[in-house]
Amino acid sequence: MQSAPTPPPPSRRDVLAGLGLAAATPLVLGSTPGPARHDLPSRPAVPGGRTVLLRGASLVLTMDPALGSGPLGAVENADVLVLDGAVAAIGTALRTPPGARVVEASGKLVMPGFVDTHNHLWQAAIRGGCTDRDLFGWFRGCTDPQRGRLTPADVHSIVRLAALDAVQSGVTTLVDWVDIFSYDLIESYVRALAGTGLRFTYAMFPPAPDAALVTKVKRELVDPAPLGSFQVATHAARAVESHNRAHWEAAQDLGVMLNSHVLERPEQRADDPIGVLAGIGALGPRLLINHAVHLTDAEIAAVAEHDVRVAHCPLSNMRLASGIMRLSDLGQRGVKVGLGLDGGTNDTSDFHALMKTAVGLQRVRTTRASVFPQVHEVLRMATLGGAEVLGLSGRVGSLTPGKRADLVVIDPAALNFAPRFDWVGQIVFNGRPENVDAVFVDGRALKLGGRLVGIDTERVVREAEAAAARLRAAA
Amino acid sequence: MQSAPTPPPPSRRDVLAGLGLAAATPLVLGSTPGPARHDLPSRPAVPGGRTVLLRGASLVLTMDPALGSGPLGAVENADVLVLDGAVAAIGTALRTPPGARVVEASGKLVMPGFVDTHNHLWQAAIRGGCTDRDLFGWFRGCTDPQRGRLTPADVHSIVRLAALDAVQSGVTTLVDWVDIFSYDLIESYVRALAGTGLRFTYAMFPPAPDAALVTKVKRELVDPAPLGSFQVATHAARAVESHNRAHWEAAQDLGVMLNSHVLERPEQRADDPIGVLAGIGALGPRLLINHAVHLTDAEIAAVAEHDVRVAHCPLSNMRLASGIMRLSDLGQRGVKVGLGLDGGTNDTSDFHALMKTAVGLQRVRTTRASVFPQVHEVLRMATLGGAEVLGLSGRVGSLTPGKRADLVVIDPAALNFAPRFDWVGQIVFNGRPENVDAVFVDGRALKLGGRLVGIDTERVVREAEAAAARLRAAA
Repeated sequence: MQSAPTPPPPSRRDVLAGLGLAAATPLVLGSTPGPARHDLPSRPAVPGGRTVLLRGASLVLTMDPALGSGPLGAVENADVLVLDGAVAAIGTALRTPPGARVVEASGKLVMPGFVDTHNHLWQAAIRGGCTDRDLFGWFRGCTDPQRGRLTPADVHSIVRLAALDAVQSGVTTLVDWVDIFSYDLIESYVRALAGTGLRFTYAMFPPAPDAALVTKVKRELVDPAPLGSFQVATHAARAVESHNRAHWEAAQDLGVMLNSHVLERPEQRADDPIGVLAGIGALGPRLLINHAVHLTDAEIAAVAEHDVRVAHCPLSNMRLASGIMRLSDLGQRGVKVGLGLDGGTNDTSDFHALMKTAVGLQRVRTTRASVFPQVHEVLRMATLGGAEVLGLSGRVGSLTPGKRADLVVIDPAALNFAPRFDWVGQIVFNGRPENVDAVFVDGRALKLGGRLVGIDTERVVREAEAAAARLRAAA
Repeated sequence: MQSAPTPPPPSRRDVLAGLGLAAATPLVLGSTPGPARHDLPSRPAVPGGRTVLLRGASLVLTMDPALGSGPLGAVENADVLVLDGAVAAIGTALRTPPGARVVEASGKLVMPGFVDTHNHLWQAAIRGGCTDRDLFGWFRGCTDPQRGRLTPADVHSIVRLAALDAVQSGVTTLVDWVDIFSYDLIESYVRALAGTGLRFTYAMFPPAPDAALVTKVKRELVDPAPLGSFQVATHAARAVESHNRAHWEAAQDLGVMLNSHVLERPEQRADDPIGVLAGIGALGPRLLINHAVHLTDAEIAAVAEHDVRVAHCPLSNMRLASGIMRLSDLGQRGVKVGLGLDGGTNDTSDFHALMKTAVGLQRVRTTRASVFPQVHEVLRMATLGGAEVLGLSGRVGSLTPGKRADLVVIDPAALNFAPRFDWVGQIVFNGRPENVDAVFVDGRALKLGGRLVGIDTERVVREAEAAAARLRAAA
């Protein structure tokens, strides 16, 4: 689906040594890290493929305070060099390796791509549906009926559309919590995700614990995807505690995280999900909990103490009347929190809106503008913070040399964004997906000049419409 | 600034009678209303100018239950005919008047344009600024210093950019509450507004009551603008009660509304603005109050009893930590409430985000999805409801034949909007300004095919950047 040139790859060391990566004013020059875990030999890793010079960006937010000024590691008027899919250097007047893709970034902003810690992409099939329902009503009225009708072709068309919507919005890593059960549907799902070029985590919910199927999906479908990783998903609740235990054991066996919905609605207090997760020994950095809107003080303390990771989904929480998550309290305790778009419960992919809402909900809850998160904190949460939540911050989340090059270019020359007053604030409060000019994942250009690369968007939309029409007819 | 053809105008009756406006299946055919109050003889009113056939729209939300099904008066697969700037008919296979602009709307949605009941467009000069402050801190840190530095050229460049951002987002009517005081700045402001083709209300705040200046601005600057109207603006508070009284008297003398900020912050309880407005006799349908976040039960009752109009600005209230307005309580009492973007305190113009947030804040406040407003209610609030707030619902706000043709075309064939499941829900929860394919004000095309008509957007941005750079240098 993507245009990916594939001439024979010289090594990154060859490029560095032979082609003269001398910077006139080198600010940062990275080491040359070893091959990434998911980098298969067959993938393109050559100048023009994953070697890119972003030239003359007006502002680079590296998210690494060691690389620039302030908490976001800001560098003005700099080039960003990507070699073989990895961030290599940030500096001025860097020499262009022969064959590199050169992207003029003058007047533009560069920052790490957004890390979406919670999604359900297939729910793009029910966009705008059951808008008068809370979580449970939405399950009954829209989610459950439509999920049961999906064919593998539907899954592919819908997931591809939703994943590409995330890409065009600047998302470079995405966790999809999937409660779809048959192998052929899962195969179609993973292929659609992998085909978009996203870095993704497939969080598989196996309703009746089935360690064999879970292992098979991980080994046969997700592990071969160069940018894919795996989690085991669950719904922690007293009524299904034995399932939760089996899911946690499967996650441990596979060496992956357990990913659970927790306390999205006030009524879920009765499920005692944190108590259940504590009881099975899952509280720790290998547990990701989503929503966590209705945590008590004691539960917040337990989450903080055990370094449990949290996905905050403010747009979903508003749509479904879930409530306002105590994000500022979690932030004050140093809990690692990322942001999540959360699929059909939010309906669309707009990380700028997500950041703005994460800030705004804490403010209306407290009527204090000084409350956590501030603009720089929510930008970190949307990028490096999300990577930390997923245990991926060694690979992505900041523009630290050696990390894989997942980054976005934002063009502020737009009626909704200009003129420059405080660009960092403007990214959060003015930015929209349409201002995302370019998106790179693992050094590969997925969006350039405001358009997805190698994607026939009209066809993607047409095929999703055909799937949706078929689903409506089957209803 | 706009491309507006100006051949000699035949009358609307000529077009109707002579050119055969017979509909194969007429659903609605309007009367031919007399000339609008602001329609000056010199304005183009000809086929190709303000005569338009929107052909084969997949869904038309007329906002008039008499014209179609449900509370939004929905009509599927219909043409919309605009004659001489007014809505003339909604039906199928309407004949095209010779010379009409034909816009193919197959697969698209048509609805009235958004009515923005509260803005401060000049604050686009301070976008992204003082993001760590509440209202008072933001005044001190960003608003007051920057406003004092504006030249007429700055005002024109900044207001034009912000107004065009509103237009491209589907706003067709906009109220600007302006606290800029010298005649030359005001002249530049009104010219920038009028030049965009928006229907606008200039709400003038005269700090020391100056009835002569207020009258001069209305007569010399606003009245000559074909789509301009006027309000007197104030800040109701005990400390300036005599000013409030003078402003109310000026409004009465001029036959216009009084427009006041009210209870945006909890601290403004001490100002007793509702008590002040009651004391000067201003409570009534000619009073528009903005924000009104911290109304008491008694104040809500008074607002309802006197048919006071309210502008709700949820995105601003989140950014500035103002709190959650009791919108559902106002809605239950039947208070006329419109939505407001509120300029720099929200930073950008996105009416879809505004609608979604107005719904979501009431839901997180109550954890009930059934609370007012529902999707159809917020769509009405954003259009006809806003027009009612401003006393303009006889002219705009619905696609009732005879009303002026202020309308938008939304193209759902986009990754963030498709596939069709519930388009009405999708407008609110998936829609973004980039999905607004066309915008007509008074029958005149301001946006077509996703692009502003006759506007050099790059130049508009460049000139706003130059103004902002000058302001920064002056700081």
